[in-house]
Amino acid sequence: MAHRVVIIGGGFGGLYAAQSLKNAPVEVTLLDQRNFHVFQPLLYQVATGWLSPANIASTLRAVLKRQQNTRVLLGQAIDIDIGARQVILSDGSVPYDTLIVATGSRHHYFGHDNWEAIAPGLKTIEDAIEMRRRIFLAFEAAEKEPDAGKRKSLLNFVIVGGGPTGVELAGALAEITRDILRNDFRTIDPASAEILLLEAADRILPTYPPALSAKAASFLIKEGVTVRTGVTVTDIRRDCVVVQDGQRNEEIPCRTTLWAAGVKASFLGKVLADATGAKLDRAGRVLVEPDMTLPSHPEVFVIGDLANYPHQTGSPLPGVAQVAIQEGEYVAEVIRERLEGKAVTPFHYRDRGQLAIVGRGTAVADLKRFHLSGFFAWLAWLFVHIVNLIEFENKLLVLIQWGWAYFRRNRAARLITGEHRMP
Amino acid sequence: MAHRVVIIGGGFGGLYAAQSLKNAPVEVTLLDQRNFHVFQPLLYQVATGWLSPANIASTLRAVLKRQQNTRVLLGQAIDIDIGARQVILSDGSVPYDTLIVATGSRHHYFGHDNWEAIAPGLKTIEDAIEMRRRIFLAFEAAEKEPDAGKRKSLLNFVIVGGGPTGVELAGALAEITRDILRNDFRTIDPASAEILLLEAADRILPTYPPALSAKAASFLIKEGVTVRTGVTVTDIRRDCVVVQDGQRNEEIPCRTTLWAAGVKASFLGKVLADATGAKLDRAGRVLVEPDMTLPSHPEVFVIGDLANYPHQTGSPLPGVAQVAIQEGEYVAEVIRERLEGKAVTPFHYRDRGQLAIVGRGTAVADLKRFHLSGFFAWLAWLFVHIVNLIEFENKLLVLIQWGWAYFRRNRAARLITGEHRMP
Repeated sequence: MAHRVVIIGGGFGGLYAAQSLKNAPVEVTLLDQRNFHVFQPLLYQVATGWLSPANIASTLRAVLKRQQNTRVLLGQAIDIDIGARQVILSDGSVPYDTLIVATGSRHHYFGHDNWEAIAPGLKTIEDAIEMRRRIFLAFEAAEKEPDAGKRKSLLNFVIVGGGPTGVELAGALAEITRDILRNDFRTIDPASAEILLLEAADRILPTYPPALSAKAASFLIKEGVTVRTGVTVTDIRRDCVVVQDGQRNEEIPCRTTLWAAGVKASFLGKVLADATGAKLDRAGRVLVEPDMTLPSHPEVFVIGDLANYPHQTGSPLPGVAQVAIQEGEYVAEVIRERLEGKAVTPFHYRDRGQLAIVGRGTAVADLKRFHLSGFFAWLAWLFVHIVNLIEFENKLLVLIQWGWAYFRRNRAARLITGEHRMP
Repeated sequence: MAHRVVIIGGGFGGLYAAQSLKNAPVEVTLLDQRNFHVFQPLLYQVATGWLSPANIASTLRAVLKRQQNTRVLLGQAIDIDIGARQVILSDGSVPYDTLIVATGSRHHYFGHDNWEAIAPGLKTIEDAIEMRRRIFLAFEAAEKEPDAGKRKSLLNFVIVGGGPTGVELAGALAEITRDILRNDFRTIDPASAEILLLEAADRILPTYPPALSAKAASFLIKEGVTVRTGVTVTDIRRDCVVVQDGQRNEEIPCRTTLWAAGVKASFLGKVLADATGAKLDRAGRVLVEPDMTLPSHPEVFVIGDLANYPHQTGSPLPGVAQVAIQEGEYVAEVIRERLEGKAVTPFHYRDRGQLAIVGRGTAVADLKRFHLSGFFAWLAWLFVHIVNLIEFENKLLVLIQWGWAYFRRNRAARLITGEHRMP
């Protein structure tokens, strides 16, 4: 019987691991709760009504249909039996010889779970649809609201977290309010909406070089975004966000709060830690060995956002697609080499830099050997994101939608969908 | 103050009425519960994973943004105060001088409301997403099912109703199972799925000429669909559909049942009847005057699926997009002519025929002066549906997706989405 590799999670890490095991003498099972892979870096474009969910998602079966040694299984992993080497599903179990756990992270509210209902985060397609619903419903409600104070509060948008997701959301929201919705309403002026980006650190995009953070901030301010750094959110309520700015507490009236701050690793990290004694960091990530395995369990790999890999730089590698992809490709290579009896070298991340879009035709890029900002960074961003979309059809459709949106300043996907039904 | 026209419903009737009032000396309010218009004839393509919801929807504000005399209001009409001439919303009211009620119909289970949870119908974007979810989940569940009997039942699909929607669903399902999903699974063979189309009348497409009904049936049978006519559904349960075929009752094991049978007019029909004494037919449609108004209420028009217009042929006009569009344009013209003091002629429907798609490259068309079937009918169908999509961007995207699907036999939008969340 062939060596059985089970991969939990069809995100960047899991999917690239599966694809890199093509033609390897193993039987691969890719297990996911969803039947599709999501291109997470573009989720904010679904949340702001630029792209449709299907544009940034590809069904796992379609991606892997020609890979004969691989099967896709739709199921929910609820436990891992390390001793018996099997993954426990809500409706069965799957045995493995080698396991790759790549279940990523969810947004996290630092112990304030009640904030989630008020300030949705952005990790799944459903999250993005919910964010889109709230953003566009706020304008609809404001258009109908006779009370000026309430109307103003409906047009206040607070984004918590000044990392790439927060910056991209703020830039896209500014474009929507200043430009895209310009002629859509009769009572309100969408351009009067206030967009507030809050960051606890002393600058936005804290993982970027300071000069690029400053450039991004000045771009956003020019577009009408209010950027506040060094402020901590202490409470989120239905009608306001409470922030601490130095010693001072302040209530910001606001009906739409978007969460782009903390993430926490999937619960399977804790399952693995409890079963094997592996250590977790504060974000719930599993501290892995130099070859991405669990200590004393070389048959279990942990990759992507669920892994804390400190061996290269002393601090964990960031939770971005590039890291997950390279880890996925690496563990596939390790599995091949082991089967051939070869020695394995530790994982080494090749950092190609980072890119964040700030607005229409504007981005910042930290490409390690040089920095870019403005239009050329935006072109680089466009190129990287189009090229990396998994399916050719999606590349084409996204390119057309972007081109159309760029030249016509229109947006196709502003649908408010949900549980609504006609009575 | 300008004459106030309020339109309830942004479907074909309401939207075309609003657009036809462009430049008229009136103030138009288009009221809908949703912020978008849906191109209903293509809903089945969303349900079968060919197109994305955004491809067949256009936001009402975007469509009407340049029409200065028109505002869009997102709201739910719960009552109409005929005496005070205002529409009562769940959160306010809207006064009118002229009212156009165009709230359409929902699917209807002939008194068996409990069937709805088991056999979803197809009237809204959410309906289509739910149908898509069930269809593709059935294959996923079958792939995991060890029991052969249960697996077979999971691969049985029953479609209730052999009108255009049922025929189009059956044809699309056949294509999915025989072709599109061919290499996607490792345990099941999707081509072994059984698709059963049930129709109570003695032939499918009963509104078409008998020769075209026969052609459509033979196309479907060639594609592997089982077509049963003259059978009545007497019960729908989680694991089977009970049918009466002559004197015999029969239980058909089946885990996915799709409803394409009855529709019932919106509850606002009853509201109007109770308030004005207007008559309703058995489907809840309002019997209107030759000018589409309520008897003794010339200020209230009822159009589209909510109206029963028997004055032209003796029987009600069918509930199709063409009827609603022409009625919308007609009542806009009546409003203009009244304001100019002109006499009004009764509504006259120009029947351009009907088209239904049966499978890949195959359709039937009853174009009144001649009939078409096969590839040329399919080309006609393609042309009519592309041309009538509201927005240019959607025409382009749909054309690309169709072209891609046709030549590559692929489908872009097979996402199973819903309330699922990662734990």
